[in-house]
Amino acid sequence: MAEKLKVSIVGASGYTGGELLRLLLWHPNVEVCEVTSERYAGKFVYSVHPNLRKRTQLRFCRMDDVKPCDLLFLCLPHGQAMRRIESFRALAPKLIDLSADFRLNDVNEYQHWYGIPHQCSGLMSEFVYGIPELHREEIRNANLVTGAGCNATATILALFPFFRRGLVDLDRTVVEVKVGSSEGGNAATEASHHPERSGAVRSFMPTMHRHGAEIVQELSFERQIRIYFSATSIEMVRGVLATCHVFLREPLEDKDIWKIYRENYGNEPFIRIVKEANGIYRYPEPKLLSGTNYCDIGFQKEKDSDRLVVLSALDNLMKGASGQAVQSFNLMNGFEETLGLEFPGLHPGA
Amino acid sequence: MAEKLKVSIVGASGYTGGELLRLLLWHPNVEVCEVTSERYAGKFVYSVHPNLRKRTQLRFCRMDDVKPCDLLFLCLPHGQAMRRIESFRALAPKLIDLSADFRLNDVNEYQHWYGIPHQCSGLMSEFVYGIPELHREEIRNANLVTGAGCNATATILALFPFFRRGLVDLDRTVVEVKVGSSEGGNAATEASHHPERSGAVRSFMPTMHRHGAEIVQELSFERQIRIYFSATSIEMVRGVLATCHVFLREPLEDKDIWKIYRENYGNEPFIRIVKEANGIYRYPEPKLLSGTNYCDIGFQKEKDSDRLVVLSALDNLMKGASGQAVQSFNLMNGFEETLGLEFPGLHPGA
Amino acid sequence: MAEKLKVSIVGASGYTGGELLRLLLWHPNVEVCEVTSERYAGKFVYSVHPNLRKRTQLRFCRMDDVKPCDLLFLCLPHGQAMRRIESFRALAPKLIDLSADFRLNDVNEYQHWYGIPHQCSGLMSEFVYGIPELHREEIRNANLVTGAGCNATATILALFPFFRRGLVDLDRTVVEVKVGSSEGGNAATEASHHPERSGAVRSFMPTMHRHGAEIVQELSFERQIRIYFSATSIEMVRGVLATCHVFLREPLEDKDIWKIYRENYGNEPFIRIVKEANGIYRYPEPKLLSGTNYCDIGFQKEKDSDRLVVLSALDNLMKGASGQAVQSFNLMNGFEETLGLEFPGLHPGA
Amino acid sequence: MAEKLKVSIVGASGYTGGELLRLLLWHPNVEVCEVTSERYAGKFVYSVHPNLRKRTQLRFCRMDDVKPCDLLFLCLPHGQAMRRIESFRALAPKLIDLSADFRLNDVNEYQHWYGIPHQCSGLMSEFVYGIPELHREEIRNANLVTGAGCNATATILALFPFFRRGLVDLDRTVVEVKVGSSEGGNAATEASHHPERSGAVRSFMPTMHRHGAEIVQELSFERQIRIYFSATSIEMVRGVLATCHVFLREPLEDKDIWKIYRENYGNEPFIRIVKEANGIYRYPEPKLLSGTNYCDIGFQKEKDSDRLVVLSALDNLMKGASGQAVQSFNLMNGFEETLGLEFPGLHPGA
Repeated sequence: MAEKLKVSIVGASGYTGGELLRLLLWHPNVEVCEVTSERYAGKFVYSVHPNLRKRTQLRFCRMDDVKPCDLLFLCLPHGQAMRRIESFRALAPKLIDLSADFRLNDVNEYQHWYGIPHQCSGLMSEFVYGIPELHREEIRNANLVTGAGCNATATILALFPFFRRGLVDLDRTVVEVKVGSSEGGNAATEASHHPERSGAVRSFMPTMHRHGAEIVQELSFERQIRIYFSATSIEMVRGVLATCHVFLREPLEDKDIWKIYRENYGNEPFIRIVKEANGIYRYPEPKLLSGTNYCDIGFQKEKDSDRLVVLSALDNLMKGASGQAVQSFNLMNGFEETLGLEFPGLHPGA
Repeated sequence: MAEKLKVSIVGASGYTGGELLRLLLWHPNVEVCEVTSERYAGKFVYSVHPNLRKRTQLRFCRMDDVKPCDLLFLCLPHGQAMRRIESFRALAPKLIDLSADFRLNDVNEYQHWYGIPHQCSGLMSEFVYGIPELHREEIRNANLVTGAGCNATATILALFPFFRRGLVDLDRTVVEVKVGSSEGGNAATEASHHPERSGAVRSFMPTMHRHGAEIVQELSFERQIRIYFSATSIEMVRGVLATCHVFLREPLEDKDIWKIYRENYGNEPFIRIVKEANGIYRYPEPKLLSGTNYCDIGFQKEKDSDRLVVLSALDNLMKGASGQAVQSFNLMNGFEETLGLEFPGLHPGA
Repeated sequence: MAEKLKVSIVGASGYTGGELLRLLLWHPNVEVCEVTSERYAGKFVYSVHPNLRKRTQLRFCRMDDVKPCDLLFLCLPHGQAMRRIESFRALAPKLIDLSADFRLNDVNEYQHWYGIPHQCSGLMSEFVYGIPELHREEIRNANLVTGAGCNATATILALFPFFRRGLVDLDRTVVEVKVGSSEGGNAATEASHHPERSGAVRSFMPTMHRHGAEIVQELSFERQIRIYFSATSIEMVRGVLATCHVFLREPLEDKDIWKIYRENYGNEPFIRIVKEANGIYRYPEPKLLSGTNYCDIGFQKEKDSDRLVVLSALDNLMKGASGQAVQSFNLMNGFEETLGLEFPGLHPGA
Repeated sequence: MAEKLKVSIVGASGYTGGELLRLLLWHPNVEVCEVTSERYAGKFVYSVHPNLRKRTQLRFCRMDDVKPCDLLFLCLPHGQAMRRIESFRALAPKLIDLSADFRLNDVNEYQHWYGIPHQCSGLMSEFVYGIPELHREEIRNANLVTGAGCNATATILALFPFFRRGLVDLDRTVVEVKVGSSEGGNAATEASHHPERSGAVRSFMPTMHRHGAEIVQELSFERQIRIYFSATSIEMVRGVLATCHVFLREPLEDKDIWKIYRENYGNEPFIRIVKEANGIYRYPEPKLLSGTNYCDIGFQKEKDSDRLVVLSALDNLMKGASGQAVQSFNLMNGFEETLGLEFPGLHPGA
C-alpha cells in the first residue's frame, strides 16, 4: 500500500471530534498525527472517549502544537474556525471544517442566522458544501470542504430530487426533525441534566433553526425556496428523523417516486430507500443507523391529496457530521468512498 | 354527602379501562360496581393493574353479569360498542363510550376511515363529542357521550380558537403528533417487543391516521377544512405532543395570540398556556403530564412569515381518554368538573 | 375542619423540596407559608417546578424571610442544616430535616462517613429516625424528626423483620441497590449529561455508600451487624430497587416468611408484600411506584440453600424522602397517617 | 489470500443468528453459504435483520436445504441442537453451537437445570466450553465448541483469576447480573410489551438462574464452589453488568489485584481492566460495549473488610454470544483471533 496520509484533528475532545478520531484510527490509509484539546492537553484520548481504551495511546495536545500535515480536520465550536482559518491553512494543503462557519456562502445570511459578522467572508465561497451526493465532483477537486448540518443533511437528501426537478411547491414545505441529545454537544447544562432531559419531547426550536438556511441554500434552483422548519428533542442520544411534508405540483404515483429516487441515488453507497409494505421497519429509523454512515429515506404519498411525506433518518454524529466528513475526505484523496465507513449498524439497536 | 353514583365499566382490563378504574375508585361521588373482562373474569383487578394492589378487592366479571347502574362506561376495542349498544343502553340511562364507534357523526366518513359499515348509524348523531372545552353545555345535558381520540384532542384543543375564528388558512395546516407506546393498547405484538420498540422513531402513520377525521369534523366551521396529519411513535410510554403548523390569514403578534387563547381557555381548569422566555420547560411537554388531565398548549410565531407553530401536550390515557371521560362524567352529573382529576403530575417526571 | 397547620419549607427548589411542596399544597390540613431558595428568591415556584403551573402563585423567598410557623421542613443540602439548626428551632416548635445531618446518632460514625465533624452533636440523639414502620410511637411524640436515606429506607424495611428477630447471619448480608438519576439531585454535572447518563449501568458506589451507616444503625439489635452494600445507577429517573441477599440461621419456608412479614407489616398502609406466582409483576418494581408512598417488598427463598433474596422498591423522592416526611408529619400532628399520600401510581408507568 | 471458508448458520432469524451473520458477512476469510429459518424461508435476511439492507441479497432457506460446508454454526433455541446433532455433524467437520445444549458436561446437572433429559449425553464432554480466555488451546484443537451463556461469560471472566488461585472463600460469592431485553430473544411476550417492559427493574430470576450451573462448572478447581446468583432486567436492550461480591481469604491490596488480572489477562485482546480514579466512566459499563467483543472488568476493594466487588460488562449478543463464537471460530481455523471483531464501540453510546 502507498504511504499513509498524515491527518490531524483540531478540537478532538467533543463528540464530533471523538467520532472522527474513531473512524480515522481504523481508516487503512490514514495516520492520525495530532489531536487537540486545550482543556485536556496531555491526557490520553481514551480518558475522554472511553470507547478507545486499549485501542490507542494517543494523547491530546494543544492547538499550537499541531504540525504540518496532509489534511486537517477542524471540529471546533461554531465561530472559532473562521477566526484562525489562515493559521490552519498554513498547516495543511487541505482542510475539512465540521463547524458551521463556512457552510453558508452568503455573508448576510451568515450574520442573520448566527448573529455575528463573519470573520473571513472572502473564503466563504471557496468552501465546498460537503454533501457528496450533491457535490461529489466539486469535493473531489476541492482543498476546502465544509461539513453540513446534521438536520440539514437529512432534509436536503430527502428533498433534493424533488426540488432539483421542480416537482414540488417551492413555498409550502414543512419539515420537522426529531433529534437526540448528542446534537447539543458534550457540555452539561441544566437542560441536559438527565432527570430533566430523560423522556423529554421538547420543542426547542419551533421556528428559527439555523439549519434552515443551509437547506434553503442547497435546495434553491429556480429561485429561492421556503422551508418551514421545526426541531424537537426526543428521548434518544444519537439520531435524527426528518419528517418532510412536500406538496406536489403534479400527480406522482409511488412508482414515479421510486424512479426519481433511483435515478438520483441508485448508485449511492450511503443512501437506502426504505419503504416496506409490512414488517416492523417499514420506514427509516435512526435507531438502526447508530455508528453507520447511512441516510435512509422513505416516503408515503397521501391518498386523494397532493401531499408527499418523506422520511429521512441518519446518525447525527456520522452521516450528519464525522462520517460524512470522512466520505468527503475519501473523495478528496482519491480513495474508495466507503473506506472506513463499513459498519452496518446493529439489530436490535442498543 | 349525597348517595354515591353507581357506575360500571365494560372492558376494564385494557389501559383506558384500568386508568378509568383508578380514577373512579378515588372519585368521592362514585361507587364502582362491576368491571368486566371476558379474559380475566373472576380475577382480581390488581392482577392486571398492579398499581391497584391493596387498594381494591374488586374482581373482573363478564359483560353479561353487569347489573343496571346509573352510568356505564364502555372501554371496548373499536367496533364492539356499536354492535351491542342497545343492550348497554338497557343497563343505564347514561353512557360514555371511550371507543371510536360514535365519534364521527357521518356514516360515510365512518366507513371510509374504519373500513366497515357502521352497525348503529341511527345513534351516531345522538352522541355528544366529549371534549368539554368545545361542547360543555351539550355534555351537561347529554345521556350519550363519546370520548375523543387522544391525538385528536391534542390537535383540536391546540387549533380550535383559530379555526373557530377563521384566522388561518383552511387548507394548509400540517400536524405531526409524537406518541408513546401505550397508544397501541395492551396487546403484545412484534412491533411492541421491547428490543424493537425501545428507542424507535417510527413513522407508523405518515398519512391516513383515523384521528384526522375527528379533527376535520370538529374544526370545520365556514366549510370543510383540510388537515395534513402524520403520526410518529417515539420512546415514551404515555404522552402525546402535537406540533401544529398553521398559516395565518392576517398578521398576529404574540399578544394577539395570547389574547385569543385567554378568551377561549382563560377559565378552563385543564388547559394551561405554556410559553416561557427561558428555562428548560418553555413549551408543553408530555412528560410533566403523566397521570394528569391537563392539555398544555404553547406557540411560537415565525418571524417574517405567516406560520404559527402550536404545540400541544397531554397524557393519552388521561386527557386523551379516561381523564377526559371523567371530566365529561362530572359535567353530566352536575359535579365539580375537576373532581377526581386533581393530580398535578410529577417533577422530575418518572 | 380545624384550622390548618402553618408549615414552611427551607430549601424548596431541589427535588425533595419540590416534591414536598407538591404534597403539602394538596394536604387538607396544611397551609404552606414560606418556601425558600436563595437562588430563586422572588420567582414563582412553578418556574422551577413546572408541574405546579396554574396550581399555586407562591414565590420563593430567602431563608432569612421565613416567619415563625407550626412546623418547619428542612430540605437543604447535606451539612447545612446542622450549622443553623438553632435558628430553625427558634422558628417552629417542630422540625423535620430531610438531609443526612441528623440521621446518625453517633458523632464518630458521622465524621467517618461524611468526612467532616458534626456541628451540633448535642442534638444528634434528639432526632427520631423517621421511618414510621420502625419508630411510629417515637415520631408521634417527637418535635425533631429526621428523614431517612432513600436506599436506607428500602433496605431497612426489607430486612427489619429478620434482623429484629435474629433470624439471619449478622455478618453476611449483601445488598445492591439500583437507583435512578434523581437521587443525585438537581445540579447538572458531566456525569448527569444526558448523552453520558442515558442507558448507563454505572457502579458509582461499589462500596462505601453512606447509607450503609444508617442501615447498620437501624438493623443492629443483638450486636452491631455488617452490611455489604453496593449502589448502581441505571436508566431511570425516579426509583430504587434494593436486592438483598440474607442468609438464614434456620430453615424457613415461604409460609414462614409470609407470616413474619404479615406480623410486622400486616397493618402498614404503605407496605405491600408483592410475590406472585405468575404474571408480569411478580416482584416489586419501582416503575409502578412513581409518585406513591409505597414500599413494595417481595422475596424468593433459594432452593437447597440458606439464601433468602428480598426485593424492595420505592420512589426515592416519596417513600425515600418527601412522602415519608409527610407520613411522619401526619403522625407528629395526630392526623390520619395516609393524609395527602393517597396517589396509587400509574399503570402502565410513564 | 487463501480460499474462503464456507460457513452456514442454522437458526439465523433470531438475535444471536442475526448478529453472527452480521459478523460473518464482514469477515475477510468467510463465505456465508446457507442461513436457515423455517419461518422465514425464502425471504431476504434483511427483512428480518434490517441493518443488513443493501449489504446482502442472501435469503433464508430451510434447515433441510443446508449443504455440506467447512463449519456450521447452530443458533437454535435451547433443546433443539441436541436432538439433531448427528445430522449437523454429517454436514460439517466443525460445529459451534450457541445454544445451552452442550455447555454443561454433567448429564445430571443438565437435567436438574433444564428440566428435561439430555438427548445426546455421549457428546457432552466432547464439546469445548467456548470461552477462549479459559480454554484457548482446547478450542484451537476442537471440532466441537459450545458457546457460553452471556451472564456466565461476564461472571466467569470477572472471577476466574481469583477462583483459579483459590484466593476467595469458595462458598460466599454473591453475583447479581443486570441484563437487557435482548437476552429474552426475539419472541414478543406480555412481559416484553413495551409499555410494561420500558423502565422495568424486574427481578426475573432472584435465584435459580441456569447460568449459575455453567459458572460453578468453570470456576470449581479445588472442589465444587457455590455461587449465589441473581438476575435483574433493567431498561436496556443490549448489555450485561455483573456485580460480583467475593470475599478474600487473605488481604489483597489494589496493586495485588491489578497484578493478578494482568497476569491472567494482560495479553487478552478482548479484556480490558477498567478502574479509573476519576471521570465518568470509572468502572465497566455495558453501554460503551454495544457491538463490540470486549469484556470490561473493574473492581473495588472495600476498606476494612474482606469484600472485593468485581464489575464486569459485555454485550450479551457479542462477547456473550455471537462475538465470542467468532473468536472461537478464528481460533479453530488458525486465524487472527480478533478478525472480524474490530469494532470499538460508540461514544456517546446510542
